[in-house]
Amino acid sequence: MAAGHGDSDHGDDDADRGAMDRALRSAARMYADDRAAKALGISIDEVAPGRATARMRLTSDMTNGHRIAHGGYIFLLADTAFAYACNSYGPVTVAQSCQITYLRPAREGDELIATAAERVRMDRNGIYDVSVRRADGEVLAELRGHSRTVRPHPGGADKTG
Amino acid sequence: MAAGHGDSDHGDDDADRGAMDRALRSAARMYADDRAAKALGISIDEVAPGRATARMRLTSDMTNGHRIAHGGYIFLLADTAFAYACNSYGPVTVAQSCQITYLRPAREGDELIATAAERVRMDRNGIYDVSVRRADGEVLAELRGHSRTVRPHPGGADKTG
Amino acid sequence: MAAGHGDSDHGDDDADRGAMDRALRSAARMYADDRAAKALGISIDEVAPGRATARMRLTSDMTNGHRIAHGGYIFLLADTAFAYACNSYGPVTVAQSCQITYLRPAREGDELIATAAERVRMDRNGIYDVSVRRADGEVLAELRGHSRTVRPHPGGADKTG
Amino acid sequence: MAAGHGDSDHGDDDADRGAMDRALRSAARMYADDRAAKALGISIDEVAPGRATARMRLTSDMTNGHRIAHGGYIFLLADTAFAYACNSYGPVTVAQSCQITYLRPAREGDELIATAAERVRMDRNGIYDVSVRRADGEVLAELRGHSRTVRPHPGGADKTG
Repeated sequence: MAAGHGDSDHGDDDADRGAMDRALRSAARMYADDRAAKALGISIDEVAPGRATARMRLTSDMTNGHRIAHGGYIFLLADTAFAYACNSYGPVTVAQSCQITYLRPAREGDELIATAAERVRMDRNGIYDVSVRRADGEVLAELRGHSRTVRPHPGGADKTG
Repeated sequence: MAAGHGDSDHGDDDADRGAMDRALRSAARMYADDRAAKALGISIDEVAPGRATARMRLTSDMTNGHRIAHGGYIFLLADTAFAYACNSYGPVTVAQSCQITYLRPAREGDELIATAAERVRMDRNGIYDVSVRRADGEVLAELRGHSRTVRPHPGGADKTG
Repeated sequence: MAAGHGDSDHGDDDADRGAMDRALRSAARMYADDRAAKALGISIDEVAPGRATARMRLTSDMTNGHRIAHGGYIFLLADTAFAYACNSYGPVTVAQSCQITYLRPAREGDELIATAAERVRMDRNGIYDVSVRRADGEVLAELRGHSRTVRPHPGGADKTG
Repeated sequence: MAAGHGDSDHGDDDADRGAMDRALRSAARMYADDRAAKALGISIDEVAPGRATARMRLTSDMTNGHRIAHGGYIFLLADTAFAYACNSYGPVTVAQSCQITYLRPAREGDELIATAAERVRMDRNGIYDVSVRRADGEVLAELRGHSRTVRPHPGGADKTG
């Protein structure tokens, strides 16, 4: 959306670029430590301020006693996209609560894509909506996540936020 | 309905025993196919009509970019207890939607215990409440699950339900 | 199905017009019997397929023991917009469950506007998102509603169901 | 903190009595200003620490376009019981979010009873479960409410906060 690059008064472009940079840095910092995402083969395909997309392929170890994907893994993928989206502004932000609705079962081998987008943010609270789709576009689940910012600055040195 | 075995009028006892038998059979059948639970080291500690308890130890592969347990795994454990509880009556029952609230973070090495209990059941719909506690009793999360019975009879041969 | 009236190939336009006609007829039929909406001075400002906007002014009789608007009335307005949105396709559809988050308090005299939009629909289930704003645009609450279609055709003549 | 009145070691009894006194005082203070509850004929039948029961009769002005009770009024009654329960400890506490599930429709003339009970409290956050029943005992709806304490002491004189 931005990539302004001059000496002029493109204040908005610069702000956009700063916001995008911060989102990418936040995602990189999180992913470096995100053992859960890595162990499950979750990739973060896209990050922007208030948005993130995560992708995962369902393995046989993710199926349950009804021989379909365990709903917990569908939630986990959606929750991952939510986490990267709500941390995209910099400050450390955690999930307070989530509500998920399952629309269709998923099966071993399905590639799932979770797309999270901010709906509203106020003070330290945010609401994010996440759709989980199969690669063919079918919606499998919808999650609404409530976030809470717990610390203004992430990690150690780097401040602002 | 039950494994009655006497000549007497102990109808309630027999019904209770039958319901308990059915809950145990349902859990055994589910667990046999539950690759997700087995792969994560989840054990089903207790099952009764409308109730189930599941247990899991958090490994380093369950931590996220904030270096605490990924909320998805806490959900997954709660959802597992919910699944065994809502299937304890026999008919195949799936999660329609779940709402989870996180109260405290969990850490690598923590042993988590999820206890699910039915709140209400009506026709094919049920509501179950699940508490996730650390082994020391601290509540980490609360989940409310909505179930829907999709098929009157599970698996193959054994009917009724 | 639609109010088509031409000889041409404007199939999409005709379908759109038919869907819009149906939404308006459904809203008119509902509002005629909607004693709750009328008694509270709720107006339906806009209806379209999968969408509806409802408006209400907070009176002193809607304040609670903390001297702010009773959250129940904010919910009620959001739920009204949701009801008109999910019935806009014609078949009788009811709320199964709703989740509301309060972001800011509302006060006596505030005019509230609830805007409902469908997020996803599948078979007889739908998910709708509703924002409740003050007239000045501030978001006061967000509701996510789950609907279920109970009868294919509403009211009188066109039966089945 | 409590209405102690003896020489003995009945510490627990005194604490219980003090907690009960506080719950009753909190309810009395809230109800005095609760114009919404009074205008709708809602009575508070019972209050105790972490618990409250509210009662309301459905009037014709509470019916909707499907000629059943508007779900908003069922929510409003449940939310009222929730409010009195979560304020029973004294400090001003508000609803952050609520999730309601409708199990059966209610009709004009039905007397509804909402019973709220705390499930868990931690720091300033609480979770309360509310059942809404018809007078004949049938469960019509289940609400789970999330509360947040905003000010340590209510109203006027006793400040801080």
